[in-house]
Amino acid sequence: MGCVFCRIVAGELPAARVLETEHALAFRDLHPQAPTHLLVIPKEHVDAVADLGDDQAELAGRLLLACRDAARAVGLDSYRVVTNTGADAGQSVFHLHLHVLGGRPLGWPPG
Amino acid sequence: MGCVFCRIVAGELPAARVLETEHALAFRDLHPQAPTHLLVIPKEHVDAVADLGDDQAELAGRLLLACRDAARAVGLDSYRVVTNTGADAGQSVFHLHLHVLGGRPLGWPPG
Repeated sequence: MGCVFCRIVAGELPAARVLETEHALAFRDLHPQAPTHLLVIPKEHVDAVADLGDDQAELAGRLLLACRDAARAVGLDSYRVVTNTGADAGQSVFHLHLHVLGGRPLGWPPG
Repeated sequence: MGCVFCRIVAGELPAARVLETEHALAFRDLHPQAPTHLLVIPKEHVDAVADLGDDQAELAGRLLLACRDAARAVGLDSYRVVTNTGADAGQSVFHLHLHVLGGRPLGWPPG
């Protein structure tokens, strides 16, 4: 249980939660990169997209639906969903998480 | 059938395909923002993440698995997956697509 996101799921660490479903949790990023910046994570620990198993399609899809619902919950119509696999791509916490960013124009390229 | 991505799925427009599954197609972005820049789309037309239905969790998850597999197919270990909902977030084609970017360090914020 060294994983900070597992500890947030377990309620051992605080987070500004905006949505919770049976399998996913959405909360505000501590270092927001836009007026609205949420993180959506599976309650079950998975390191990253690269580590999803073939039997986890539904879990993965429920994460995208949780992004949709978390965005709606905070009033975002337009938003970008981003997830990083590997340190070179910017992943810093190795528990799969999808960033949902909105509330300002978002540039291209995405990093 | 005005949708360009539906036309690519139908084979009416060319694309540099890297992976095809029963439900998804991956091909190279025409305007790459990184040494490797793929697009992963569902064969079934959905406008964006915001338009996914509750009954499409498995479809959405299979898209993330197709990102995983397309990245593997082109030899990427580290990559960023990005999808935009709405013009303000940078969406330009209104057929759900996930960008897979890698091959260079990716900055933060993601746009």
